[in-house]
Amino acid sequence: MPIAKPSHLPPLDPAAAAPFYRQIYDRFRDAIAGGVLKPGDRIPSARALTKELGLARGTIDAAYSLLAAEGYIQPRGQAGTIVTPDLKPRAPATAPVPKPENTAAAPSFRPDSVLPFQMGLPALDEFPRKIWARLGARCARAMQPPGMVHPAVYGLPELRTHIAAYLQVSRGIDCSPSQVFVTSGYRHTIALIAQALLRVGDRVWVENPGYPPTRELLRHMNIGAVPVSVDQDGMVVSEGIKRAPRARAAVVTPAHQSPLCVSLSLPRRLALLDWAARNKAWVIEDDYDGEYRYVSRPLPALKSLDREGRVLYCGTFSKVLLPSLRLAYLVVPQAQVERFEQISQIFTAGSPELTQAVVTAFFKEGHFARHIQRMRKLYAERRQATAAGLEKTLGKYVRIDTQPGGMHLILKLQGRRSDRQLVARMRQASLYAEALTEWTVDRAGTPALLLNFTNVDTQSTAETLGKRILQLM
Amino acid sequence: MPIAKPSHLPPLDPAAAAPFYRQIYDRFRDAIAGGVLKPGDRIPSARALTKELGLARGTIDAAYSLLAAEGYIQPRGQAGTIVTPDLKPRAPATAPVPKPENTAAAPSFRPDSVLPFQMGLPALDEFPRKIWARLGARCARAMQPPGMVHPAVYGLPELRTHIAAYLQVSRGIDCSPSQVFVTSGYRHTIALIAQALLRVGDRVWVENPGYPPTRELLRHMNIGAVPVSVDQDGMVVSEGIKRAPRARAAVVTPAHQSPLCVSLSLPRRLALLDWAARNKAWVIEDDYDGEYRYVSRPLPALKSLDREGRVLYCGTFSKVLLPSLRLAYLVVPQAQVERFEQISQIFTAGSPELTQAVVTAFFKEGHFARHIQRMRKLYAERRQATAAGLEKTLGKYVRIDTQPGGMHLILKLQGRRSDRQLVARMRQASLYAEALTEWTVDRAGTPALLLNFTNVDTQSTAETLGKRILQLM
Repeated sequence: MPIAKPSHLPPLDPAAAAPFYRQIYDRFRDAIAGGVLKPGDRIPSARALTKELGLARGTIDAAYSLLAAEGYIQPRGQAGTIVTPDLKPRAPATAPVPKPENTAAAPSFRPDSVLPFQMGLPALDEFPRKIWARLGARCARAMQPPGMVHPAVYGLPELRTHIAAYLQVSRGIDCSPSQVFVTSGYRHTIALIAQALLRVGDRVWVENPGYPPTRELLRHMNIGAVPVSVDQDGMVVSEGIKRAPRARAAVVTPAHQSPLCVSLSLPRRLALLDWAARNKAWVIEDDYDGEYRYVSRPLPALKSLDREGRVLYCGTFSKVLLPSLRLAYLVVPQAQVERFEQISQIFTAGSPELTQAVVTAFFKEGHFARHIQRMRKLYAERRQATAAGLEKTLGKYVRIDTQPGGMHLILKLQGRRSDRQLVARMRQASLYAEALTEWTVDRAGTPALLLNFTNVDTQSTAETLGKRILQLM
Repeated sequence: MPIAKPSHLPPLDPAAAAPFYRQIYDRFRDAIAGGVLKPGDRIPSARALTKELGLARGTIDAAYSLLAAEGYIQPRGQAGTIVTPDLKPRAPATAPVPKPENTAAAPSFRPDSVLPFQMGLPALDEFPRKIWARLGARCARAMQPPGMVHPAVYGLPELRTHIAAYLQVSRGIDCSPSQVFVTSGYRHTIALIAQALLRVGDRVWVENPGYPPTRELLRHMNIGAVPVSVDQDGMVVSEGIKRAPRARAAVVTPAHQSPLCVSLSLPRRLALLDWAARNKAWVIEDDYDGEYRYVSRPLPALKSLDREGRVLYCGTFSKVLLPSLRLAYLVVPQAQVERFEQISQIFTAGSPELTQAVVTAFFKEGHFARHIQRMRKLYAERRQATAAGLEKTLGKYVRIDTQPGGMHLILKLQGRRSDRQLVARMRQASLYAEALTEWTVDRAGTPALLLNFTNVDTQSTAETLGKRILQLM
């Protein structure tokens, strides 16, 4: 069988936004899809390719394991690695990397590969992987019978204790571990709240513009989402009261509104809590990135003002650690603990022991607090660098809003450009963006791009990416 | 500060059913709860205790980490380990080991510690922990950016492929990886099916007696559970047709009925599929332990007979691997793939990358198939030994039903004894059992104990446990 030389493949580009492992992956995938490499062909061993390209072995391994996981190649031990012999066009469900055409047709909020500017991701290059791997290995080795059976349904007791202590110190929330429920992510948290406190036919205020999955989730649970405008002070509470005074709940992102990044002002916070107390309604605080504020200190959570026990606080490890953990949490008012215990017992069976144990160890050894400190500093720099690089290349066509916090920039498009069309073209070019008008309901939104900056390492990278966007405008 | 000598504590009992780590844990906990050890007291270092008791270091470490996780003790580095200074009576939610009184009042289906005869657990002592730890450590070290972002919503592609291949070989199910959806457990699987295919007010057949959480889950989703009797051939399909001909679905456990362990006969299987096809109803096959049959070979799944695409197949790794993984799966008919993809996108965000990666590696290296083979042999022996030991000690008062498969024995109580009262007394004595009448609705059930045998290692252990039950009768 012939061995495909790397020289068969287009050269790597050190200036490209995609990391090398991704470029190698893309080149092999395209070569296989395009017939340059045929089923059964041998490809160079990871060791040989490492040597030939002069890259780190881990880079090649990452590309190869991605290709193998997706079925493009097969390691055959001593016989080397070959292109999968019975490779067929794959059904969409098993192909984690969507074809550009598909992506363009309906840009997903959750692409299956990592793209520049991708929303909702922390800085992957600066994650303390070595520490993580050490703790992961240690927890895997330490497994004993109590950790092999069904995990505690509300979360590992020690993890709940760490979360409660962290929220006290960092977010000003006074809660006991028994008020903390570990969940598998924001969607699970919202579903749990709905199962415990809402009924079919209830109405709930949501921010407009606001995070689209919240609306979608409520709609599928037969709960009516009432869009309420957001201005420079956050959700316009008076509009909510006017549109749906008897709503059962309001979902808000007080720290940095999702997606406009404004903070809910103190008068609005008090008005919202007052409305909730008078109507026995619930305030669902989604504090997904409250830690990431770059001007002055992070604001305390809305929950810290909750005297009447109306606020349900939703936190997540997806932004401060990694989305792949599938770990989030919910803090419920003391009077609701029993209700949430009952509902958790019926609907959930706990999160995996191993991931909870690793996060617990990460807290215990002090890495959690250090990591957040480091990321806050890093993101302040990357935000600045990304804004500067995009301003330099796209400044004539966009206005870049800067807000004191968050993980993404908002680029308002000047003139009559469609943000949706531009986003579709960007996805075709393997650049991620979301269109602000997609986050808006019931009225014409401002056309703007939402671009995550946490994985843009330098101003020069931002300029390179800005130039690519410019060509698509 | 005084150091508590092990001699303060009651001696360990090598003949007891509880492993040593558990006995050490119990003794310290009781000593702390009873005031023998006081807040702030130093306890022996793990190393010192290891030496003094002549046990393996891992045993002591397991006991200490359990005590630390639950807040009883605190490691203080060089200063040694102490009883938590501000130790207070704990709220039920944070105390993973319920007090005997509580347990007796309302025996939970999910105790938070491991008890003899506990239902739903695989053999914990025979799990290949070393292999598992090696794979876990390797997967933790191998983490690369594609494994750090949101996991594929329907499950890791490679894991779905392994599951599909395994089901083909072992359960006779012909499905593509795109029909396999990885979930976080049976409850999640059922909720997903309900969200995708059922509506508020629908009626669903459930087995009577049958797994209580299924009824509870349906009730909380406003779906009516219609109990249908089970006889020696499994669910009485004709009774279901008579009671609720237009039901939208039937939940069945065809391999070994839960809890009676009978198999659904071929005529009944065909009648059920025929009813479903004619009424466009769904058959939800819960195959939680189909592998564990000790007489002849495991029966093929009901799904293998599904020509009309009416069967949803629910599998889990809780019984064949470990419940702490929180990994299960659902196989949907080809025509329903798109619907389940849509619903998964809205309600779920995938299972943790790490646990999926470890299970994938376990499959890939051939451990999965070997492990099931080993356990089938082991469980056949333990079933025999447990039945013999209990027959010898309790034979005058119970009739032990033997069925060809499953993971538990059924001890029918002779005379007019109440199974619920006996179960409550057993829980007080730290012995697990479930009462058959608790699994039965709408009519007087047969009083019987359900006892899991997979963690009973020898006939002599079974006799010791049988004698303890005898004292409680």
